[in-house]
Amino acid sequence: MAKRQTAPARGMRDLLPAEVALRQRCEQVIRERYAAFGYEAIETPALEHIELLTGGQGGENEKLIFKVLKRGEKLDLAGAVDESSVVDFGLRYDLTVPLARYYANNQGQLPAPFKALQIGPVWRAERPQKGRYRQFTQCDIDLLGEASLAAELDLLAATTATLSDLGLSGFSVRINDRRLLSRLVAAAGFDASTEGAVLISLDKLDKLGREGVAAELSAAGHAESAVQTLLGILDDGEAGLRRAVAGCETSAAALADLLRLGEAFAGSSAGGAVSLDPTLVRGMGYYTGTIFEVGLPGYGFSVAGGGRYDELVGALAGRSVPACGFSIGFERVVLVLGEQGAPTRTGERVALLFDPQKDGSAAVLEAAARLRGEGRCVSALALKKSMGRQLDDLAQHGFTAFCRFDATGAGELRPLGAGKDV
Amino acid sequence: MAKRQTAPARGMRDLLPAEVALRQRCEQVIRERYAAFGYEAIETPALEHIELLTGGQGGENEKLIFKVLKRGEKLDLAGAVDESSVVDFGLRYDLTVPLARYYANNQGQLPAPFKALQIGPVWRAERPQKGRYRQFTQCDIDLLGEASLAAELDLLAATTATLSDLGLSGFSVRINDRRLLSRLVAAAGFDASTEGAVLISLDKLDKLGREGVAAELSAAGHAESAVQTLLGILDDGEAGLRRAVAGCETSAAALADLLRLGEAFAGSSAGGAVSLDPTLVRGMGYYTGTIFEVGLPGYGFSVAGGGRYDELVGALAGRSVPACGFSIGFERVVLVLGEQGAPTRTGERVALLFDPQKDGSAAVLEAAARLRGEGRCVSALALKKSMGRQLDDLAQHGFTAFCRFDATGAGELRPLGAGKDV
Repeated sequence: MAKRQTAPARGMRDLLPAEVALRQRCEQVIRERYAAFGYEAIETPALEHIELLTGGQGGENEKLIFKVLKRGEKLDLAGAVDESSVVDFGLRYDLTVPLARYYANNQGQLPAPFKALQIGPVWRAERPQKGRYRQFTQCDIDLLGEASLAAELDLLAATTATLSDLGLSGFSVRINDRRLLSRLVAAAGFDASTEGAVLISLDKLDKLGREGVAAELSAAGHAESAVQTLLGILDDGEAGLRRAVAGCETSAAALADLLRLGEAFAGSSAGGAVSLDPTLVRGMGYYTGTIFEVGLPGYGFSVAGGGRYDELVGALAGRSVPACGFSIGFERVVLVLGEQGAPTRTGERVALLFDPQKDGSAAVLEAAARLRGEGRCVSALALKKSMGRQLDDLAQHGFTAFCRFDATGAGELRPLGAGKDV
Repeated sequence: MAKRQTAPARGMRDLLPAEVALRQRCEQVIRERYAAFGYEAIETPALEHIELLTGGQGGENEKLIFKVLKRGEKLDLAGAVDESSVVDFGLRYDLTVPLARYYANNQGQLPAPFKALQIGPVWRAERPQKGRYRQFTQCDIDLLGEASLAAELDLLAATTATLSDLGLSGFSVRINDRRLLSRLVAAAGFDASTEGAVLISLDKLDKLGREGVAAELSAAGHAESAVQTLLGILDDGEAGLRRAVAGCETSAAALADLLRLGEAFAGSSAGGAVSLDPTLVRGMGYYTGTIFEVGLPGYGFSVAGGGRYDELVGALAGRSVPACGFSIGFERVVLVLGEQGAPTRTGERVALLFDPQKDGSAAVLEAAARLRGEGRCVSALALKKSMGRQLDDLAQHGFTAFCRFDATGAGELRPLGAGKDV
């Protein structure tokens, strides 16, 4: 028999048992902690109507949708004029757009406010690269129907507690507000139409530095006075921000809320320091207010992020529904914990070795069940010709002990693995 | 704002919190019990190469694949001659074909034998009907690389133990063997080319009865003598089977194995009675030996089923890999447990009500954290104008208790819900 092409689809991956064990353990920790904060798990289908996914909320992600071909009579390939005439569904590229549809569709059966937890796969047809996959797991909590800062507080407290439970420490939470960002750009004297581009440059402050950002903004043709005013505001910290929001009720309220949020956390025992970062931007276009991001020392990426998006759900629900969400970067957290040597499997894993020619099947089943009764994971396995090699293999694949079935039941348990006296 | 179209894609469904809670609880029970038997969870991507999914192993399911449109330069819609020229991936319709590819792709890193657990969604573009969905969860265990009956015994013991853990009782396991079925058809005198059709009729014995099946076979043009001989063999039970397999080594061995399997279970304390049913057929074409199915009293469907498929994995792995698997009908189990009134949520769910105008945010966070410290799920929620109505809503949505935040922290916990003194 010739081995056939057996690699996963391009950019997708097979997960080995040790990887799944770590992922499952993370998922369990996340589910338990968020449940303790009152977040209720929901599920939406992987496939959505293509119209929902291409409504403009997904930004660049809408270009990365895996689209599903129509079926049966509905498919007219010969008469196809463009993609949209031959597809009806698409695989979701995030969990937020489906949540908005879900809430609109089921709001009569959901409490108000509604605290949702979603953990599930999403798909993006990106060019595959190391560490980035075309199917990956997202982990979102969202609080719908709460307009006050109580939502942000709850999301932040729940997420920092969960990150602590996962074994992460030393992380820092940066917060900002989209309305404050808009005001900074306006107060500095940039043209309103250039706000998006200015923010993209501002977002690079940690990478390019103060002078690098100034150079990029100048090169893009912005007035030198606006560039210098913006950087001056940022140089002056809170005083600069207060100066910028003076006379603008919306952004002044946003700044006051951010300061309150920081104070509330400074006064609580929740894990992680919270600080106001006026250069935090975050990409998604649907944010309308507070935005937050959690960084880990020593890693050049965030492990969680989120913000307020008061328009997205309402647009589908047909009434105003304030909303705020926080997403844990599940794949990144798993990566970090794996690198930190987090144990993938816990507990004793025992191989009960028996001789299929001699040992009675029913007796082997019973012996295994008895061993399990004491809380162990027990696999009944037929003895191989070379027991020494079999024991090496078992140790390599995560078994911690073995015993030889004998006429009186399972024999003595003996340890397996590196450093153990086999 | 007008409410937009928000229903899920046709045949798909949104899962409400109570439904997800029950499903999660089932999944957890299944994962724990199978892990105790040494089955290791693995994951494969939802999308597979379309060539893998249309290789013939999936039978009728291959007609129900959601196919994914090629992207970018690879897509030539104008020059499309047929479906296969415009699609590259498809959503998996089961977990067995992906498992075969996974094992072939990763065999160097997996133990032998390998005991795999998979719980995940699959997709089939069936005509939607009540209780059947186009995305549903499958739950499979498979033992790869074990040719002996030890595989069947382990799968049966693990699955019956898991069904018991799930709270199901009174279930019965029927076993048969594809080789025995072939021999019955041949021994009765049917033409070998009609075996598939004869088995389809035989499979209806429990629905149509003895005379119904005889009538169907006769109407299909089979020799009356063959029809009567087959039914005569079945009438005579084990003696009839022994008569039929006489002189055929393969089927005689299959019958002996089935009897040994039944005996091993009769002698063990594993839940569920195991009995030989020579009319059990099961649909999938890839089965090569033992087949099994678990029925529940009072329900016209099976809750688990499986069998031996010694050719499927080897065809991809490039060497012989005996394989045997058992699938729990996850959706059916959830349905049955829901109907039996299984509690969807467990534990105390507390609403900590606070006044956002007066109560300090940090103090509310702390009070909630303290309540959680005692093992409760606690949601901090802003007081509404009508507290009476709010309490009714909370009870309706599964909260079991509430307390009013006061200056000294959380006040007294008071019960909520039907029959409780609120």
